[in-house]
Amino acid sequence: MERRNVGILGATGTVGQRFIQLLAEHPWFNITWLAASDRSAGKRFEDACSWKLETPLPQRIADMIVQPNVPDGSSTELPRIIFSSVDSDIARELEPKFAAAGCAVVSNSSAFRMAADVPLVVPEVNAGHLEAIESQATRQSFGGYVVTNPNCCAIGLVLPLKPLEDRFGIEKLFVSTMQAVSGAGYPGVPSLDILGNVIPFIKNEEEKLQEEIGKLLGSTDGRSFRYSDATVSAHCNRVPVLEGHTECVSIKLRTPATREEIIAAWQSFQPLSGLSFKLPSAPARSVEFLEAVDRPQPKLDLMRGNGMATTVSRLRPCSLFDWKFTLLSHNTLRGAAGCAVLNAELLAALGKFNFKRFPPVNANFASQDLVNA
Amino acid sequence: MERRNVGILGATGTVGQRFIQLLAEHPWFNITWLAASDRSAGKRFEDACSWKLETPLPQRIADMIVQPNVPDGSSTELPRIIFSSVDSDIARELEPKFAAAGCAVVSNSSAFRMAADVPLVVPEVNAGHLEAIESQATRQSFGGYVVTNPNCCAIGLVLPLKPLEDRFGIEKLFVSTMQAVSGAGYPGVPSLDILGNVIPFIKNEEEKLQEEIGKLLGSTDGRSFRYSDATVSAHCNRVPVLEGHTECVSIKLRTPATREEIIAAWQSFQPLSGLSFKLPSAPARSVEFLEAVDRPQPKLDLMRGNGMATTVSRLRPCSLFDWKFTLLSHNTLRGAAGCAVLNAELLAALGKFNFKRFPPVNANFASQDLVNA
Amino acid sequence: MERRNVGILGATGTVGQRFIQLLAEHPWFNITWLAASDRSAGKRFEDACSWKLETPLPQRIADMIVQPNVPDGSSTELPRIIFSSVDSDIARELEPKFAAAGCAVVSNSSAFRMAADVPLVVPEVNAGHLEAIESQATRQSFGGYVVTNPNCCAIGLVLPLKPLEDRFGIEKLFVSTMQAVSGAGYPGVPSLDILGNVIPFIKNEEEKLQEEIGKLLGSTDGRSFRYSDATVSAHCNRVPVLEGHTECVSIKLRTPATREEIIAAWQSFQPLSGLSFKLPSAPARSVEFLEAVDRPQPKLDLMRGNGMATTVSRLRPCSLFDWKFTLLSHNTLRGAAGCAVLNAELLAALGKFNFKRFPPVNANFASQDLVNA
Amino acid sequence: MERRNVGILGATGTVGQRFIQLLAEHPWFNITWLAASDRSAGKRFEDACSWKLETPLPQRIADMIVQPNVPDGSSTELPRIIFSSVDSDIARELEPKFAAAGCAVVSNSSAFRMAADVPLVVPEVNAGHLEAIESQATRQSFGGYVVTNPNCCAIGLVLPLKPLEDRFGIEKLFVSTMQAVSGAGYPGVPSLDILGNVIPFIKNEEEKLQEEIGKLLGSTDGRSFRYSDATVSAHCNRVPVLEGHTECVSIKLRTPATREEIIAAWQSFQPLSGLSFKLPSAPARSVEFLEAVDRPQPKLDLMRGNGMATTVSRLRPCSLFDWKFTLLSHNTLRGAAGCAVLNAELLAALGKFNFKRFPPVNANFASQDLVNA
Repeated sequence: MERRNVGILGATGTVGQRFIQLLAEHPWFNITWLAASDRSAGKRFEDACSWKLETPLPQRIADMIVQPNVPDGSSTELPRIIFSSVDSDIARELEPKFAAAGCAVVSNSSAFRMAADVPLVVPEVNAGHLEAIESQATRQSFGGYVVTNPNCCAIGLVLPLKPLEDRFGIEKLFVSTMQAVSGAGYPGVPSLDILGNVIPFIKNEEEKLQEEIGKLLGSTDGRSFRYSDATVSAHCNRVPVLEGHTECVSIKLRTPATREEIIAAWQSFQPLSGLSFKLPSAPARSVEFLEAVDRPQPKLDLMRGNGMATTVSRLRPCSLFDWKFTLLSHNTLRGAAGCAVLNAELLAALGKFNFKRFPPVNANFASQDLVNA
Repeated sequence: MERRNVGILGATGTVGQRFIQLLAEHPWFNITWLAASDRSAGKRFEDACSWKLETPLPQRIADMIVQPNVPDGSSTELPRIIFSSVDSDIARELEPKFAAAGCAVVSNSSAFRMAADVPLVVPEVNAGHLEAIESQATRQSFGGYVVTNPNCCAIGLVLPLKPLEDRFGIEKLFVSTMQAVSGAGYPGVPSLDILGNVIPFIKNEEEKLQEEIGKLLGSTDGRSFRYSDATVSAHCNRVPVLEGHTECVSIKLRTPATREEIIAAWQSFQPLSGLSFKLPSAPARSVEFLEAVDRPQPKLDLMRGNGMATTVSRLRPCSLFDWKFTLLSHNTLRGAAGCAVLNAELLAALGKFNFKRFPPVNANFASQDLVNA
Repeated sequence: MERRNVGILGATGTVGQRFIQLLAEHPWFNITWLAASDRSAGKRFEDACSWKLETPLPQRIADMIVQPNVPDGSSTELPRIIFSSVDSDIARELEPKFAAAGCAVVSNSSAFRMAADVPLVVPEVNAGHLEAIESQATRQSFGGYVVTNPNCCAIGLVLPLKPLEDRFGIEKLFVSTMQAVSGAGYPGVPSLDILGNVIPFIKNEEEKLQEEIGKLLGSTDGRSFRYSDATVSAHCNRVPVLEGHTECVSIKLRTPATREEIIAAWQSFQPLSGLSFKLPSAPARSVEFLEAVDRPQPKLDLMRGNGMATTVSRLRPCSLFDWKFTLLSHNTLRGAAGCAVLNAELLAALGKFNFKRFPPVNANFASQDLVNA
Repeated sequence: MERRNVGILGATGTVGQRFIQLLAEHPWFNITWLAASDRSAGKRFEDACSWKLETPLPQRIADMIVQPNVPDGSSTELPRIIFSSVDSDIARELEPKFAAAGCAVVSNSSAFRMAADVPLVVPEVNAGHLEAIESQATRQSFGGYVVTNPNCCAIGLVLPLKPLEDRFGIEKLFVSTMQAVSGAGYPGVPSLDILGNVIPFIKNEEEKLQEEIGKLLGSTDGRSFRYSDATVSAHCNRVPVLEGHTECVSIKLRTPATREEIIAAWQSFQPLSGLSFKLPSAPARSVEFLEAVDRPQPKLDLMRGNGMATTVSRLRPCSLFDWKFTLLSHNTLRGAAGCAVLNAELLAALGKFNFKRFPPVNANFASQDLVNA
């Protein structure tokens, strides 16, 4: 597969930095464009960004000049593939403009996740939802479109849910989370609030988690989405952990299943095996089940599958529902930038990046035209 | 009320130190006897104990000599009231011996919590259960008996449950905990295991929490206990917090209740108001409800009611059951030593410490004689 | 002593909240005025402030209306005593205005600490420096003046230094700090930067610590200050601790001293004993020496002397200088608000709060008129 | 270079696990023998060991049977190269036995570091000291010998010191450390002692650090060691960090040096470039200097040079000595197992592993015969 030029919207942020980390040496993509807010535009990236990752900032990226976060369709320099991770309000304004400029916007932002013609995708779970981009007005007019990935907690959770949904059906779900501070971005959670503490509240998080699972496990006719009618109740908490969301789950199935059947469902889960291309960021196994009684733990299991697998353990009977288990997912790799990159790899494999020439500039195309929400 | 002499079994441990902190200046009790394992016996307390509390060790206690952890009924020095916090295996062996020696054993240990004639008591919840001590064989023969308090998580949880049980009935309950490291004693959890980490497992904790709630909310005929048939499903986790267990709860009531009715139930909860004596350690309110959306937090709410209140917040509808809320309880004050002290205060107020002369020594009285379990 | 009305500049901040905590029940002072930035002015205090202390916000304070941070000399409501803790830039502009309005400004800000006619005071160390307020232009014209307390690290350090300086003379000093996050205010240090980490840099901190010690240990002729010529070299670090600065010190004395002599100097240090009034916030001992080998520790020793004492331990020979020791000081109590309150108590005891009538309004009095710096 | 069989003494411990992590895929070494205490001997390694590293335990190692920690010279299975990391008391007894059995003992233990004929080596600093093994009695009689690496703090510190010593001479040195909990092994530091806390004491650490620097910077005539006469004064502290020791240093040089000259000394430090073999574990640069003002930080710089480099920053003038700087070193990679592996690579490159046939069993060879200490 030839390497395609890509850009990053919100490149200086926490997820933006992860995009750079994942894409700097990517076999299919080549970063040629970085954009951030007006405060950063025009600066060398290194000077605009407080790099917070444990791997060094590549020198080539450090030297790039940060662009303004507007599409400039007349420019030959705007890549057709844009990874986006900006605040929801900004995404709501900007992402339709990039789509209208002919770009494929692969977004980690929450703005359009629940929009009626925008796919909310985790490749192993609902790759078929991507077809809905063909219904988007910008796709039909200019070739551009918006694809989103879910909230960090929903991504980690839906991976082990999917094979259970397929085999046994999921009726009810209780989930209580212990989420890392990196999920709040930078500067994010003040240390005075979280050192040695628990904050039992994350704004809008429970609502997102509850509704996104329904869309992810639902079906599509290629134009709109029908949600799963599984009922989800979430408790979301912040804990003093740097990376890795832990989630305690109790689940009621539609068809009874033994412990062995559930483990077998997880261990045989190979949903991407039918693709013609091996996606470079896909983990060998998307769900890793451990028998050890005191796992998963962020310190020990965060990087399974290069940070792209959900680790599951403690499968045991639930006195209220059928089964209980605990899962762990890397919230800024699999739960954010990594899922968006995997979505982009899937789009590439499906031919959704084979654009024709750039459309004419259409700066007036507004977000209400994009979505039917 | 006259000050009574009391002793502490397991005085050098984490909970033993809390007993000392709470009892050193207690208006009703006077520490005259400290016992610990053979390794410590015979030493000055200060030399035997690595004092870990933020308040200084009182000099009078520092200078006391640690006694062997055996009852010596011929001695005039063994107090009739013994606070106990030792490992379950040791408690199973020792506590009956002290009861057979004529002592009231007010225990924080788990050994006899579920025994058929041993009360498991939180004073605000089930004071009436104390009557069952009269059925204990040691009580009838020698005056001594064993009273226990629940597991730390069960204490914090049952306080807000009790007024809901009384008014609306509790049918089902999900609870997911985030527990402090102090709950594991000292040295307890290695820092390598918990710094920046979550451990989603605490041995036997879920079982204890699930079964103890049933006994606490159940009834007694004065001889045995009938358990509540509320179904409880627990997920127990360790988080890097020093003190304070946070619990996320989803609850299904037998009779529907509005948000206002639930809050009213908590705010009007005054179960100890009928006693002739004000118990010195009882908080003004055992359940404190906060409207703030991001509370309770260990850092901010741990010491409400001098560490004896359960703080509750985030009351909101649950998509699976009726209501969701989050609670916080101080696990080594209210959840351990403080609850035992409150139990002792209640026993004093009820006249259960009005002993006759010491019984004859009966060192052969074994634990199987004490309990019907 | 009659209770005097006082105000707080920067009342919503981290140190402002500590001022409220310390002054709400103060026997000599009565909070009647709270001011903060324009964003907060006009709101109820509770609505303007994110209260972060473990003790509850008093209801009377919660209900007060936040005032604009300007002196209004015509108003009868502006108290003559103003506690100030605002950013240095703001203090540089505001504090002279309040002094020119006739107020005694007792400041925790760094703006005027090194100014030529502004006392930098820790009561136990250099109470005599307060006399320099009489040289301040605003004092002479309008009765108002500015008094400052040092940087948090300098306060904790200078307390054990003072008796050594008096008896043996201090020639050289190496100090390496491990400072709590509360020292950076709120939101302050992002949790992503400090959880499980050390940041070996705090802006301007080493410079402040090095120069302030010289002024504190220096002398005054009542008009200007002569600095001590002790040489100080500081390394300042941030560690994941909520409250409490730990400092490792190596010291070279001018006159040799034995270990016993040094301990005796600390234990007999009673510098405030000559005052006619016992200052309410003064600790029984300003320096507490411990023999235990692994102390002081923030977790165990933070609150010695109600958070107003410096705890010292690990006194041992230094292979380069004479002696090494480690100290701990509560950085937002003794190291900030508590020291300012103690300064105010000292000013009250010295009669420096016996103001005449309010001066005429003089809004144009500028900071360059106040200081000779 | 052919792959040689190696064994690990103390394989289940914290450093033992790092040995396994570093050696499992090593190009020159092949793990064939794992030993631990009697409690573990005879078990599968996976069952004997609580694996605590973030990379998975290799299956081949998991299945190995733990051997008793005694040399069995008649066995063909005892490898001639033994990596050792056991408690000092045990090392003092065991390591001479393995040397007397003909093994090269590459030890991370402190027992023989200061022994008169035992090299204490960091390859980039004093490779020439290895020649002293030829003076060891066991070497002369049986071919076996003991080589040690320094304490974790000394390793991180001596790397940037060495080029300064060579060019300018080091006269005096202050060092104040902030050390990670992993340095204390497992279970090591209880979480109750270190969460949100600083412990300003680590037993024997300051002594080790002070004396080992002298041996490392000293010279040898091939038989005995002459120590550097640089004077070192150390303050050692434990902080709530998982991995990575941070050290604040003030240094007095014998010859004045500019900032540029010091940086140049570090950046041109290539001490291993003269070897015929590139050592597989040697970092590209052993000292990495950063200009950023707030570095090094454990979170960001721990893994520079694959955890084998010392990162240095904050080079600035010292008011007492000449220069101040801060350094960071990975305490269980470079500071323990990694340094021992690098020592072994150096021994291999120097031909010190070209053993003849195994010597006769000599179980009575005692530690006093080995060392002249």
